[in-house]
Amino acid sequence: MTKALSIFDTTLRDGTQGEGISLSADDKLKIAKKLDDLGVHYIEGGIPGSNNKDIEFFKRIRDYKLNAKITAFGSTRRKDSLAEHDSNLARIIDSGVSVATLVGKSWDFHVHTALQTSLEENLAMIYDSIAFLKRKGLEVIFDAEHFFDGYKKNPEYALSVMRKAEEAGADWLVMCDTNGGTMPHEVHDIVTVLKGQATSARVGIHTHNDCELAVANSISAVRAGAEQIQGTMNGYGERCGNANLCSVIPNLQLKLGYQVLEEEQLQQLTNTARYISEIANVYMPVNQPYVGSAAFAHKGGIHVSAILRDSRTYEHIAPELVGNRQRVLVSELAGQSNILSKAQQMGIQIDPERESTREVIDRIKELEHEGYQFEGADASLELLLREANGDLKELFVFESFKMLVEKIAGRPVTSEAFVKLKIDGASIFTAAEGNGPVNALDNALRKALITYYPGLKDIHLSDYKVRVLDDKDATASKVRVLIESGSFGNSWSTVGVSGNVIEASWEALVDSLRYALLGQAKREDYVAISSDSRGLVNH
Amino acid sequence: MTKALSIFDTTLRDGTQGEGISLSADDKLKIAKKLDDLGVHYIEGGIPGSNNKDIEFFKRIRDYKLNAKITAFGSTRRKDSLAEHDSNLARIIDSGVSVATLVGKSWDFHVHTALQTSLEENLAMIYDSIAFLKRKGLEVIFDAEHFFDGYKKNPEYALSVMRKAEEAGADWLVMCDTNGGTMPHEVHDIVTVLKGQATSARVGIHTHNDCELAVANSISAVRAGAEQIQGTMNGYGERCGNANLCSVIPNLQLKLGYQVLEEEQLQQLTNTARYISEIANVYMPVNQPYVGSAAFAHKGGIHVSAILRDSRTYEHIAPELVGNRQRVLVSELAGQSNILSKAQQMGIQIDPERESTREVIDRIKELEHEGYQFEGADASLELLLREANGDLKELFVFESFKMLVEKIAGRPVTSEAFVKLKIDGASIFTAAEGNGPVNALDNALRKALITYYPGLKDIHLSDYKVRVLDDKDATASKVRVLIESGSFGNSWSTVGVSGNVIEASWEALVDSLRYALLGQAKREDYVAISSDSRGLVNH
Repeated sequence: MTKALSIFDTTLRDGTQGEGISLSADDKLKIAKKLDDLGVHYIEGGIPGSNNKDIEFFKRIRDYKLNAKITAFGSTRRKDSLAEHDSNLARIIDSGVSVATLVGKSWDFHVHTALQTSLEENLAMIYDSIAFLKRKGLEVIFDAEHFFDGYKKNPEYALSVMRKAEEAGADWLVMCDTNGGTMPHEVHDIVTVLKGQATSARVGIHTHNDCELAVANSISAVRAGAEQIQGTMNGYGERCGNANLCSVIPNLQLKLGYQVLEEEQLQQLTNTARYISEIANVYMPVNQPYVGSAAFAHKGGIHVSAILRDSRTYEHIAPELVGNRQRVLVSELAGQSNILSKAQQMGIQIDPERESTREVIDRIKELEHEGYQFEGADASLELLLREANGDLKELFVFESFKMLVEKIAGRPVTSEAFVKLKIDGASIFTAAEGNGPVNALDNALRKALITYYPGLKDIHLSDYKVRVLDDKDATASKVRVLIESGSFGNSWSTVGVSGNVIEASWEALVDSLRYALLGQAKREDYVAISSDSRGLVNH
Repeated sequence: MTKALSIFDTTLRDGTQGEGISLSADDKLKIAKKLDDLGVHYIEGGIPGSNNKDIEFFKRIRDYKLNAKITAFGSTRRKDSLAEHDSNLARIIDSGVSVATLVGKSWDFHVHTALQTSLEENLAMIYDSIAFLKRKGLEVIFDAEHFFDGYKKNPEYALSVMRKAEEAGADWLVMCDTNGGTMPHEVHDIVTVLKGQATSARVGIHTHNDCELAVANSISAVRAGAEQIQGTMNGYGERCGNANLCSVIPNLQLKLGYQVLEEEQLQQLTNTARYISEIANVYMPVNQPYVGSAAFAHKGGIHVSAILRDSRTYEHIAPELVGNRQRVLVSELAGQSNILSKAQQMGIQIDPERESTREVIDRIKELEHEGYQFEGADASLELLLREANGDLKELFVFESFKMLVEKIAGRPVTSEAFVKLKIDGASIFTAAEGNGPVNALDNALRKALITYYPGLKDIHLSDYKVRVLDDKDATASKVRVLIESGSFGNSWSTVGVSGNVIEASWEALVDSLRYALLGQAKREDYVAISSDSRGLVNH
């Protein structure tokens, strides 16, 4: 059980086949660096020569000192030609990698339909291409496309493909479930057969998630003897994606006892997954196993009381093992106990017996009913709780804002904002431009506040999300805006909800600055904006 | 293999434990109706008496004529008391359901830590509660919480819990992997043991997705003899969610040969999954197996040429079996062949040899580079292709728009839009209010066009999505707006991108109306807006 397993990451190649995923050469280099830090063993960079990005990637990656092996992907030579004359194989060699990942057909139906050649010529294509790359001194990983489908239809031919690849000197024979339709018990049976046949080469597994079984199929193959697992971070990939390495790795290491990564590297898993999701600009589902923000989040009231006693009651592993953390969600489903435990985490002393405590809990439920979500906006929640506790005083008195967007044919669009408020009895009226309406509002509001609160200059907005709450009425529906802000390594999130995206953004902006000042001032000195000044009254 | 299996849906109970999921009584009734149409066998409605929504649900559902059995969830009686005096058990009976789902502890650690009682008292709590509900004439499904964890730590006790439940008359013994940490081969082994012990009761499986194995574990249990599968639609549920019935059902029926639903019902799977995701207002990942919009979407150039020959080359099932469909994605990765095949699907005759064809392909790639995404905006793509083909003429000449949002303390926010354009040489200047800035713009634009194009009155916007493209600069970053519009059962999607959310919305709005008129007019008569009028020039 302590046998070494190789993790082969194809986020940069198969991952980019996923809908909505597109990576620049810079993006690819950043991700490769991060994957190397995580400790994966192979990084498939792309298809050399297929496009400029991949050419640039393979050129620039040579200057990186990595532990992982970089590999380039390509197909077997064209039919009825020589490997020596094949431009794709030449590009793999020219890319400067030490490892080639070569894909070939192992399903007779595909040889006839897609390649439109004979079964014998396909075998020759595989043999010639591998032998050629081996002569050039490369390590060769042979990806047998559609191996499981092929085996089920014509086992003899599928196995002869693997034998041919091994004869030609392939270092790895990788069984691909290209269409993702194979069941875990079938994977186990078929890997067992191949393991009985392979002599010198080691075997690997490459699965797709079309039946939501890619992770299970990878594990099934490892239990039958596979030693290399191909997959992608966050399971990116064509159609339903590839095997998600963010789940495969901890399952192998924490559940099945294989040594895959160093302990410290495994603790980087959550951080790596989220970093890559940001670079790829793909929404990470909150409920993603192991690394999602809700993976260890507890909402049910009974569960919350139990995990407060012993977290093993409702957590299958300690979240810290994969660099994640436990969260208690505040929601309508939650009892008073969730909100009180949240307050405790924030260091707010709330007396459950006080009338104001009951009121703020009712207020939170009411706001959630209106579409606010405090699960992702801890700072707005903290402001509500401190306000109820009498910890906050008024920071300014809001009077009005105006926001103007203008577009004239042939000229760039302009955004201007005007903010009117009172601080310590003095009237302030500011105007500012911005790259967009929210940026203009942010600029005007800061302009008004910065003389009084110079610390605001170090605050920046790091994320801005808009969610339409009720699709049915389209442009007349409510929107929820979440803003993440940061300052010197701290970050906090705030929320605003309105039928008007500008007003919702304003609310979240104001909360962000209120919270920022909360951290900077002594609590006794702290004066905050009343709810009234956010414009929530009579609305 | 043709043994009947029972699908137990707990979307309305366990599903609502997921982060960000909250359902009103109305929502729950709509979902129950939809689940019944799909053909699930049990629908768990909630916890009677835990909140007003669930009380209302159980009251109103009695008036529905459903094939599915409605079941109410509750815990075994409190320790050291009588089942007859237990308020939770009384509420199950009062809810009027014919089936109770009763959860009890089967892991000794939980009995000590969470219940804080003795192992014997826990057995008595289980026995008394089930026997009481059976005396009241209910079908009883016993959910053994943490059964797998319990069995691994203390197999004797876990099995004695099940024996006790059976003795008390439970109709079903359901093994729950509550913390989601169990591996598929362990599930298989442990279910096999229990099957060997159960005599009168049938066994079921309830899994969670913390290791991305909930679907695999369900299948593993069925292969070992489980006959009821508990799960949720789209895999909603606490932490990483429950077993996703949208994958479990087609795997059982299409891959393992069980008869679960009628063929026509299975064809409603995609529609049902999307409907529930809309009601729950939870983003459905495009790559969700079987039912996601990318589940049968092809992006790689080689794959596209192969599926155009025979779709079995890269599809594990015919998408129509689950009510989904094949899509060819247009993207940077795609060659000219994808765009040409897309044009063909749209009925546009494009000559690949023409200079304008090369130009429009370059233009599409350039727009994608700027952040446009045509994968989800077919209508905008069609307009580009038709424009390149000379099929479109100018609909109006854009001159300017202005958008004003104003908020004065204590008064509701207002949104006003002003649109200036020329049609057939005549100047038109309109003003309109709206619920928000985009609604105001939409109103002003329609006001300007409707006299000339009266058909616009039947067009409505059905969905509006905003995506921030580059989180790094927050409010100064680019946004992409997707608008879905509909008319008489047709629907189409358009896209706009800008640093300014208002401008991006304007672009998508204008494209939506252009496309609508494309359908209404004869092509020869059709006059369209030039790109210039969308404000794309000099921007």
